[in-house]
Amino acid sequence: MMFAESRPGRLVRAPENFLDAEAIRAVQSGRRDFLRSALAGAAAVGAGTAGAQSADGEKVILEPQPHATSLGKPVAASPYGMPSKYESNLARRESPGLTRVSAASVSFSPLQGMFGIITASGLHFERHHQGFVEIDPAEHRLMVMGMVRAPKVYTMEALMRLPSVSRMHFIECGANTGMEWGNVAVPTVQYTHGMLSCSEFTGVRLKDVLAHCGADIRRGRFVLAEGGDGSGMTRTIPMELVESGEVMLAWGMNGEMLRPENGYPLRLVVPGVQGVSWVKWLRRIEVGDQPFGAKDEVLHYTDLMPDGTHRQYTSIQEAKSVITSPSGGQRLTATGYYTITGLAWSGRGKVARVDVSVDGGRNWKTATLQTPILSKCLTRFTLPWVWNGGEALLASRVTDSTGYVQPTMRQLRAVRGTRSIYHNNAIQNWQVAKSGEVSNVQL
Amino acid sequence: MMFAESRPGRLVRAPENFLDAEAIRAVQSGRRDFLRSALAGAAAVGAGTAGAQSADGEKVILEPQPHATSLGKPVAASPYGMPSKYESNLARRESPGLTRVSAASVSFSPLQGMFGIITASGLHFERHHQGFVEIDPAEHRLMVMGMVRAPKVYTMEALMRLPSVSRMHFIECGANTGMEWGNVAVPTVQYTHGMLSCSEFTGVRLKDVLAHCGADIRRGRFVLAEGGDGSGMTRTIPMELVESGEVMLAWGMNGEMLRPENGYPLRLVVPGVQGVSWVKWLRRIEVGDQPFGAKDEVLHYTDLMPDGTHRQYTSIQEAKSVITSPSGGQRLTATGYYTITGLAWSGRGKVARVDVSVDGGRNWKTATLQTPILSKCLTRFTLPWVWNGGEALLASRVTDSTGYVQPTMRQLRAVRGTRSIYHNNAIQNWQVAKSGEVSNVQL
Repeated sequence: MMFAESRPGRLVRAPENFLDAEAIRAVQSGRRDFLRSALAGAAAVGAGTAGAQSADGEKVILEPQPHATSLGKPVAASPYGMPSKYESNLARRESPGLTRVSAASVSFSPLQGMFGIITASGLHFERHHQGFVEIDPAEHRLMVMGMVRAPKVYTMEALMRLPSVSRMHFIECGANTGMEWGNVAVPTVQYTHGMLSCSEFTGVRLKDVLAHCGADIRRGRFVLAEGGDGSGMTRTIPMELVESGEVMLAWGMNGEMLRPENGYPLRLVVPGVQGVSWVKWLRRIEVGDQPFGAKDEVLHYTDLMPDGTHRQYTSIQEAKSVITSPSGGQRLTATGYYTITGLAWSGRGKVARVDVSVDGGRNWKTATLQTPILSKCLTRFTLPWVWNGGEALLASRVTDSTGYVQPTMRQLRAVRGTRSIYHNNAIQNWQVAKSGEVSNVQL
Repeated sequence: MMFAESRPGRLVRAPENFLDAEAIRAVQSGRRDFLRSALAGAAAVGAGTAGAQSADGEKVILEPQPHATSLGKPVAASPYGMPSKYESNLARRESPGLTRVSAASVSFSPLQGMFGIITASGLHFERHHQGFVEIDPAEHRLMVMGMVRAPKVYTMEALMRLPSVSRMHFIECGANTGMEWGNVAVPTVQYTHGMLSCSEFTGVRLKDVLAHCGADIRRGRFVLAEGGDGSGMTRTIPMELVESGEVMLAWGMNGEMLRPENGYPLRLVVPGVQGVSWVKWLRRIEVGDQPFGAKDEVLHYTDLMPDGTHRQYTSIQEAKSVITSPSGGQRLTATGYYTITGLAWSGRGKVARVDVSVDGGRNWKTATLQTPILSKCLTRFTLPWVWNGGEALLASRVTDSTGYVQPTMRQLRAVRGTRSIYHNNAIQNWQVAKSGEVSNVQL
């Protein structure tokens, strides 16, 4: 199943002679221009490389496929399009038995088969505390109250009349990678890191709405956000974050309205902060002069430290990265060239650099970062690699724009112990066996 | 229907006293800090603004909605998520009667209801020449031949092993806005400009594949791309574009595999060039020393000039912009504050600036551009506006990073005449009547 979950095409037989000896040396010595020499070298090898098969060639030319000689499906066959039936295996999945009730559980994004930085909304991860609801936007209201001169109740129409902004940000559940604390090596990257997505969000800045209501931001240094679902989710947001202009009341995601499971018609967007604070089905904002001490910030989403105390209000997602391919559950079926690729992000700013190791952290090479590199947004990294058939230990390590370097699990446990659930941003190690099997290991 | 097509929430009654007189003067004089003063002013007005209704307030507080007191739907209720049932009206639509066969037609993206710059893949426009097909990626092959030292046939697996890049680009059909040439004022922005979408694409650079096959790029200055559908779509791509590194063989779109109607499993991505050259279901690349003179470049997608000659190989999409809201078919139901918003793009680089006029081009104000501003990608612009209830004529005008300024229809016709179908990048005018009805007019 794990094997089936991974994307076909990443796991096939390596084209013979794909790289010549010189190109391989170039890769291993990390030379920047390796690609040119690699391809030139491979090209020089001539026909028979890169899976070239004359039989297939004849098939293409002499035997036109049925779809090349027939009338296809009409436009708007689906007014709203869907992925190919051949991609049905790429889906978000619940981790069986993770919770007792599926309405209070998680479905994970299939990172192992995803590209770039944008998460297709159909694959966005889910974390519900009492299931998700479908609210009629015409009936939905947002109340703004507390330390404000003019409390208001907004219709969606009134909110959507306000000046809006669109920004790309990652959202990560504070419990993402939580199983790893206790030495439970979850098998695939979908289950280790799949409570992570990235979208373009559109909405109005909370700062502007609070100004509209005449909030007293001198004394009112905290904001409570309350959701409209059955869990009564409430979270405290520090006013500094609101004043930065980054916190949004969002209705748009990837060009269309939010999906019901992501908070339709209105959710809070708190860039860099754990997902639980991005309150869904948002119905109330209250301004106050102290943290509200809601159950989901004093009892849950806290960090149990080695001395038995609970660390509260630790909501910024520190810099983190993970290799998504090759990753646990995938299998390298031949030696030769692979692209090591993955995602990096930081709740404190931009990704400055990602280093990749294939020998368990003894040696590191700097990966290529895809652009654009945006603040509090996913960044895709890639590094060419030639697998020689031996054991390998793959890991990535991000450095963010503040200079913070992603810690090892050992470094993190030295401070945090092993009894936490939340806020694990440790380096993830994937072990490649001689058989080509990739598995999750902890060092 | 047009009214129904436009997004609810953009058309509601303006909140009374939303802006005070000073703020309105600020908007009209284009003052940059208008927003602060506007909101501060509005806030000072106190309760009763922005659609605040105490009845609604009580409803929120005293009468919890059923969804707030019940158990919702479980996670992964949809392994692949879909929009809310309340959004079913936001869909791509065929323009009835545009062509005789729906398999050789167009479905348009609903720009009037979209946010930001990313197009949700389910709403991506479609233009098929003989319908779309669903190809098994395991069966698909790409042949690279012609002036190359080592002709090859690639499996998808072999292609996806090559080094890949992810980039955000717009795609626009060369016939987008084509009806306007003949003074046919198509009613909504979905039908005037909806052959436009923007996605994050992932694939391998054609430049690298050609190097892999040892292409003779000194003599072979042209590339033929051939699609695998029944229309035998073939287009010539100049080698300069390939050498720039921008042309990709793409399999990924917005984080997942291409949709079948968008060329699954492989399409050409030619940033800045009209959509027809982004050959779908790509099965063959041929390198040659002259343009291939394919039917879809010498007979179709040519510009019939006033002197009766046909202009061929004009494939770069020049700078263009359009206001998506308020736009044709929408209705302003009250005076007061609106956000004028739209999209701008250029096939030659970045959007440098967008100016907006509310009086038919006599006066212009510079709009705010959302970031990131990327090359050959959509850019979202916004400008605050207070409608005073009189007639208004809304228009946007883009200037790109080469200094090129979007022309008026009159300027364009002076050069191109009125018998063209393709490559209309003229300024679009929307007329706001005293009734608030917005309609498409040509000046």
